[in-house]
Amino acid sequence: MKTKRIILCGLGRVGHAFLRLVAERGPAVAEQYGLDLQIGGVVDLGGAAIAPAGPLPLDDFLAHTQAGGRPEAFPGYGRSGLAGVDAISGHDFDILVETTPTNLQDGGPAYQFVTAAIGKSMDIVAANKGPFVLHFARLKELAARSGSRLFISAATGAALPTLDVGKFSVAGAGITAIEGILNGTTNFILTKMYREKTSYADALKEAQAMGIAETDPTLDVAGYDTRNKLVLIANTLLAGSFGIGDVPVQGITAITYGDIKRGVRDGQALKLVATATVENGQTTLAVGPKYIDASHPLAAVNFAEKGITYTTDTMGQITVLGGKSSPQGAAAALLKDVIHTHMFSNESRRQ
Amino acid sequence: MKTKRIILCGLGRVGHAFLRLVAERGPAVAEQYGLDLQIGGVVDLGGAAIAPAGPLPLDDFLAHTQAGGRPEAFPGYGRSGLAGVDAISGHDFDILVETTPTNLQDGGPAYQFVTAAIGKSMDIVAANKGPFVLHFARLKELAARSGSRLFISAATGAALPTLDVGKFSVAGAGITAIEGILNGTTNFILTKMYREKTSYADALKEAQAMGIAETDPTLDVAGYDTRNKLVLIANTLLAGSFGIGDVPVQGITAITYGDIKRGVRDGQALKLVATATVENGQTTLAVGPKYIDASHPLAAVNFAEKGITYTTDTMGQITVLGGKSSPQGAAAALLKDVIHTHMFSNESRRQ
Repeated sequence: MKTKRIILCGLGRVGHAFLRLVAERGPAVAEQYGLDLQIGGVVDLGGAAIAPAGPLPLDDFLAHTQAGGRPEAFPGYGRSGLAGVDAISGHDFDILVETTPTNLQDGGPAYQFVTAAIGKSMDIVAANKGPFVLHFARLKELAARSGSRLFISAATGAALPTLDVGKFSVAGAGITAIEGILNGTTNFILTKMYREKTSYADALKEAQAMGIAETDPTLDVAGYDTRNKLVLIANTLLAGSFGIGDVPVQGITAITYGDIKRGVRDGQALKLVATATVENGQTTLAVGPKYIDASHPLAAVNFAEKGITYTTDTMGQITVLGGKSSPQGAAAALLKDVIHTHMFSNESRRQ
Repeated sequence: MKTKRIILCGLGRVGHAFLRLVAERGPAVAEQYGLDLQIGGVVDLGGAAIAPAGPLPLDDFLAHTQAGGRPEAFPGYGRSGLAGVDAISGHDFDILVETTPTNLQDGGPAYQFVTAAIGKSMDIVAANKGPFVLHFARLKELAARSGSRLFISAATGAALPTLDVGKFSVAGAGITAIEGILNGTTNFILTKMYREKTSYADALKEAQAMGIAETDPTLDVAGYDTRNKLVLIANTLLAGSFGIGDVPVQGITAITYGDIKRGVRDGQALKLVATATVENGQTTLAVGPKYIDASHPLAAVNFAEKGITYTTDTMGQITVLGGKSSPQGAAAALLKDVIHTHMFSNESRRQ
């Protein structure tokens, strides 16, 4: 049995869901993988709860926070005002699980948390896209130097295994193209427009009423979320180093029902597609609405579903679809990556 | 750089394609994964070619066999009459790649090759289903005892990563159901019947003319190939031990165009589906024609394509589709599994 000590930074909905999952699945993970997961620390805005050795009593901690208690007020373990960087630097952990809110201006405090954890040769498991979208090359280099590894499934489609297929299932094959429907909100809006013969504005309103689109939907509908995921996927799987400036982006706000209908007449579906094309070793990235053939497996990805297709030189096309889009789905992706830190040998990297 | 020495048993179309792939991709695999692949031995019916230390000169060997030369006649390395078991037992290899023809009576010589390799604590990478369909529990137990690991991607859908998604992408989640379209020939026949409003007999003839169905199509059309893959997938991923006797099987030979049309009227597609259902820890397996909803991702799997859907408790449904069905696709799956022997740490098993 191998013990791995985890520090969680960020106790929002995804962070909470992750802790509940560890509490519930811990015994099964120990039995199935020989891996004993210990939550050794939890950091949020006002401070932290830290167990310097051994695990936090997780059931008690969850009862405490679910009753509205703050981590720093957790009896016996709370440390008021303890900053994330100090929590990471001052104690022994094997894995940082990062779920603070994505900040695309400067990466937010998460960038400091990630670099501190890399400084201690910890593995990084992140739902937060910020530090990686902004500083992938730098973090990859730091991680390679210290022996840390970066696991970002939860930031690149949550339970949809976008990276797994590219890293593991096509290992040894050359990836010549990637196409993805990576954002559930925009795919929901486009599907609604088609099914209900309605305008973008009306479909957006409906998505907002259902809680699928945000009050300010820009991140999704302008294509930025899709672009951010594409940047992470390309940096992980393809040769080269990519930033958001390398991706021309068009969103879905100007699409009309007429545009969609025109495609259907020709047997095509209009989708917001992220594409990466590799030619002569050069990668080209783009995000925009695209007519795709009815026979393409992504054409049948409807409503809030996501999907990604890898075109390879020796294995043909492989497509993966689905995966729950929710805090629980993201938490399940974090737990998967935590298990992967154990399943994969340290010498094997494709980052 | 880690060196892994491979012995290949079986030099048919898949075995040849695997050697060509290693010759072509060896340098890329070394660069990307730090893994130096050496073909140290090749065994076929009349004997073997063995390099007791270092690699066989692979380009020369391929030139020799492509000109019709037998392994045992390869100058400097050929060993006429050397049996597979003796080739494995008498020399040092890390991995057995098994591509002899599937034999479902007694497993054929492959069963001896696999047990000999397990006896030497080698990892097993197999395209041959026979030994595993017939003796999974026994081989798993022997492997666990000796520290060998079993990699059977190529036997369970070739380039379609049926097992990868179940082993890696849903790690930590509970699998509650598996549904698969696992046989390209039967799916081709059903698609043809629907598209061309034709009978089973006519669609079969067309598939035979195109080389998609065998002259004796029984293994495919009676559902046995689908069943065999289901047995391997269930044994790998689900609790319990399953043999072919545990799977009620119905093939597609009695299906009429009327049956297919009836489904289409109700918005459903008729497919040959392998199912595994897990309820209260009990797994139920079955293979048979099944109407599936148009909204189900497997409904859009047409012609010789394959696909598999995992239903999980925390990640929702995840479906993977595609992957080349050919000797080259199978060879690419073998190379992937060979790379996985290096990517995965020895302590992590879910078998």
